[in-house]
Amino acid sequence: MLYSKIFGKTRRDSKKYDSANATYLIKAGFIDQVMAGTYTYLTLGLRVLNKIENIIREEINTIGTEVFMPTLAPKEQWAKTNRLETVDVLMKSTPANKIAQAKNDTEYVLSPTHEETVTPLAQKFNLSYKDFPFALYHIQTKFRNEPRVKSGLLRGREFRMKDLYSFHTTVEDMKKYYENSKKVYTKIFERLGIGKETVISLASGGSFTQDYSHEFQTICETGEDTLFFVESTGIYYNREVAPSEAPKIKSNEKILPREEIEGKGIKGVDELAKFLNIPVEKTTKTMIYEADNRIVAVAVRGGYTINEDKLKKILNCTVLKMATPEVVKKVTGAEVGYAGIINLPKNVEIIIDESVNNRANFECGANKTNFHSRNINFGKDIPIPERFYDIKLANEGDLFPETKEKYKVMKAAEVGNIFPLYTKFSDAFGYKFTDVDGKEKPVYMGCYGIGPSRIMGIIVEKFNDEKGIIWPESVAPFQVHLVGLDLNDESVKSKVYKVYKVLSENNIEVLFDDRIGVTAGNKFSDADLIGIPVRLVVSRRTGEKIEFKRRNEKETKIISVEEVLKFMTKSQ
Amino acid sequence: MLYSKIFGKTRRDSKKYDSANATYLIKAGFIDQVMAGTYTYLTLGLRVLNKIENIIREEINTIGTEVFMPTLAPKEQWAKTNRLETVDVLMKSTPANKIAQAKNDTEYVLSPTHEETVTPLAQKFNLSYKDFPFALYHIQTKFRNEPRVKSGLLRGREFRMKDLYSFHTTVEDMKKYYENSKKVYTKIFERLGIGKETVISLASGGSFTQDYSHEFQTICETGEDTLFFVESTGIYYNREVAPSEAPKIKSNEKILPREEIEGKGIKGVDELAKFLNIPVEKTTKTMIYEADNRIVAVAVRGGYTINEDKLKKILNCTVLKMATPEVVKKVTGAEVGYAGIINLPKNVEIIIDESVNNRANFECGANKTNFHSRNINFGKDIPIPERFYDIKLANEGDLFPETKEKYKVMKAAEVGNIFPLYTKFSDAFGYKFTDVDGKEKPVYMGCYGIGPSRIMGIIVEKFNDEKGIIWPESVAPFQVHLVGLDLNDESVKSKVYKVYKVLSENNIEVLFDDRIGVTAGNKFSDADLIGIPVRLVVSRRTGEKIEFKRRNEKETKIISVEEVLKFMTKSQ
Repeated sequence: MLYSKIFGKTRRDSKKYDSANATYLIKAGFIDQVMAGTYTYLTLGLRVLNKIENIIREEINTIGTEVFMPTLAPKEQWAKTNRLETVDVLMKSTPANKIAQAKNDTEYVLSPTHEETVTPLAQKFNLSYKDFPFALYHIQTKFRNEPRVKSGLLRGREFRMKDLYSFHTTVEDMKKYYENSKKVYTKIFERLGIGKETVISLASGGSFTQDYSHEFQTICETGEDTLFFVESTGIYYNREVAPSEAPKIKSNEKILPREEIEGKGIKGVDELAKFLNIPVEKTTKTMIYEADNRIVAVAVRGGYTINEDKLKKILNCTVLKMATPEVVKKVTGAEVGYAGIINLPKNVEIIIDESVNNRANFECGANKTNFHSRNINFGKDIPIPERFYDIKLANEGDLFPETKEKYKVMKAAEVGNIFPLYTKFSDAFGYKFTDVDGKEKPVYMGCYGIGPSRIMGIIVEKFNDEKGIIWPESVAPFQVHLVGLDLNDESVKSKVYKVYKVLSENNIEVLFDDRIGVTAGNKFSDADLIGIPVRLVVSRRTGEKIEFKRRNEKETKIISVEEVLKFMTKSQ
Repeated sequence: MLYSKIFGKTRRDSKKYDSANATYLIKAGFIDQVMAGTYTYLTLGLRVLNKIENIIREEINTIGTEVFMPTLAPKEQWAKTNRLETVDVLMKSTPANKIAQAKNDTEYVLSPTHEETVTPLAQKFNLSYKDFPFALYHIQTKFRNEPRVKSGLLRGREFRMKDLYSFHTTVEDMKKYYENSKKVYTKIFERLGIGKETVISLASGGSFTQDYSHEFQTICETGEDTLFFVESTGIYYNREVAPSEAPKIKSNEKILPREEIEGKGIKGVDELAKFLNIPVEKTTKTMIYEADNRIVAVAVRGGYTINEDKLKKILNCTVLKMATPEVVKKVTGAEVGYAGIINLPKNVEIIIDESVNNRANFECGANKTNFHSRNINFGKDIPIPERFYDIKLANEGDLFPETKEKYKVMKAAEVGNIFPLYTKFSDAFGYKFTDVDGKEKPVYMGCYGIGPSRIMGIIVEKFNDEKGIIWPESVAPFQVHLVGLDLNDESVKSKVYKVYKVLSENNIEVLFDDRIGVTAGNKFSDADLIGIPVRLVVSRRTGEKIEFKRRNEKETKIISVEEVLKFMTKSQ
């Protein structure tokens, strides 16, 4: 393709966006921002997106059947699964003006995921047990009412998604398919050029299951997720589910008598630690929750955050919410900010994280407005509880409880996730099948997502240098960037057009910088910015030969067209 | 592909939908209706859709550059072109629930067309006059708040669209490109198998231009449009713009004296004609309009409808609307239903269609509640107007005014349309370019649409018989439908699988009906319903040979695999 003819050229401005992928993809002319979180894919960007989607398609075709479900869905279907009023990123369509409203004022869900469409679809065909298992997928544009769009293609309001749904007659079959899907996903990320850096992590099963779900995470400094890796087991946990044990605070201190200190209006554990002249690790954070109809006081060591997912599982409750200031006052006798785990009424359950233990002379709220208790010790000021829990978000430095080894912690970007859905959606739609024994039984489901546009962004986050993008071969917009110099010289010009022709005839995808009046320096820096794996230069200087350089190498070599062809077919 | 493995099998029910395409496509398992106007494309349907889109893509690539613009657009852009509040099919997105709303309550337009996105996109790249002309297109899902979805894939709320936008420095260049686009479109429809039946018709230029726009219409009995064809000029007019002359009513009748007849509550010209015992052609329909600030009485012969587009052009007004009953009363002195063209106040403009002329002793409203005037004659009861106009929707039987020849009238379905946009959108966004003379000048634009999903529906409307669909080769989901019979016989089974393998290895797309336990009759009727161009049968009876039959022919022949391969490569 002639560079002069593509739409979306490099930009010379030095504008920086909030992420490497936004900056490079916009500057190099791959995408254009229509508004926050919404992009047009220009010539180069669309080629990359299509390559990513085709690799995904080829591999998913081995385990599923492609269909194409619509974006719009009836609101009633979403009400059936109880997601219409609860999914915080859900968008709907509505007439845009009064004239439109007068003609048709029905509203439709703009699907951010397709369980509510695919389950009734599968159900409608009323398949025999012999037809199970089967799996349907599509590659579609998805919509999410994302409050904070950011990081270019990593988190948008409109993005591309491959979502696959599998259907099974038994939970065992669901699990077997689920395990196999991991292999297919691994192959996809290998082919996309991020295989080495992509790991499987355990993540929350959400509202579907007590099990974990699984995420495919690409290790990446600018990723939004934090992984906790246990070296001895080889298991990665997403921070949100990592079991954690706080490091012990060794101390041979003398046990001191408990004191109450007045400290009005102190905000947060850091300020409090300073005020009391103790390390933050000696403070305690106590929060009052309402769990269904129970009142629960929950305590973690200062510096930790309560993980409500973990807490919810322990409390085995449906609705968990922070108590209102009124309830806190009633329960603790104090304003918000002074709750502690001493002297609470008997009807309050107390859940103490293990991080609260293993400390001497620690602080906790006094359950008295403006007062903090100091030199608290289990067995003296508070009875030793029957057990300590793990209800905190893991921090770097924490131990994996089973083996007591310190986690290796790293940043990562999610590139895919898979969920065992069990019968959550088939139950909601009453989707059953008739088994060989003539009995109606529930259908088990799994769902499996990969975001092609997001992956495009993550690849750029991973593979770039100060000059621009460095595309993996499989998803590069072209295989070769042919730079023509000295094009005013007719003999050079005819030579470079001949090279372009020969490469194209050999089915090599070439982006040919045919611009006249652009300096060699600009053409080279554009080539580096765009990031195609191989750069070829034809100029007066190269004579009958061609200068060959890989984007990720420094050296250049002068070789013949035949050698170029040999190199290119080898690298395919 | 194995038929047993595809999703979306034929249905045995006899349910009929409102159109052939809906009935056949659903019954044959190409699509599934999610809700009115919204469909899932199943395995077979998606293959057809992809083939249609790829043919369009290949041809449009010769005159434009593919990009991929998002569905969501900022409302402000639509306000700039004054379409936010006026487009009656416009939808927008909004948070679906209170939680979502609390997080982000911005609304976005769901684009039914992309001028509001592509114009600022082109503008942003600030190209030199040397880079013009250029054209951008994408293939996207579009949304229309269609009040009456109908006819399967022909009119939906969510559908596929290829929209191309061209940019030019002069109006001449725009027109040159526009003419060339017709050739490309013609080639596309030829390749899609509807070339012979597809014609170019003149249609309304909408609010963009006084010029005509052009539609590509496939002649089709079930089409929604009516074309008026002038044989001597070879020009097709969409009914909405066809110039028309009503047939003269020959009469040697004696001119009779005008009468006023009381006829209370008579509704419509048919009832009136009966009541007065005159032919409908002798009645007159008079409507009172407000055109900007003018009051206009408009008259057409009974049996005709006023064409407001034509009227608006003649009146050269911005807003045209029917007068309210209050205004009608004030102007005519009568309730609605009794307006006529006699005795109107001087400040009322009168526009009389030519169909009102050439009649003797005709009827018109008496401008008196419950009264109708009879035996009206020009020059006697009403002054002969300076000129008669053409402000009616053409009826079958009308003449083309220039040549006085009777139109050939036919039904057709629109498969594409092209619009000269001139500077309507570039003006709205202030999009100018700097010309070679250093002056800023406006950019001229054109837009060019084709709906792939709609075309899929129209192809089925055109090509079907009582047994099912008859796909053109270029868009058929597969080239060959291989029916295996007697599959319980291992030797037959191995033979048919071998045929399947040989065909596949020769890159022939085969749908192989590998089902066991389905009768030959059912397999044949499924093959006819699905409509793949060639059916092959391998059974005990065919021995080492294969039965070959084309979907659109009756005869079968018994031939060898080699002959099948020869036939198939010939037909490609």
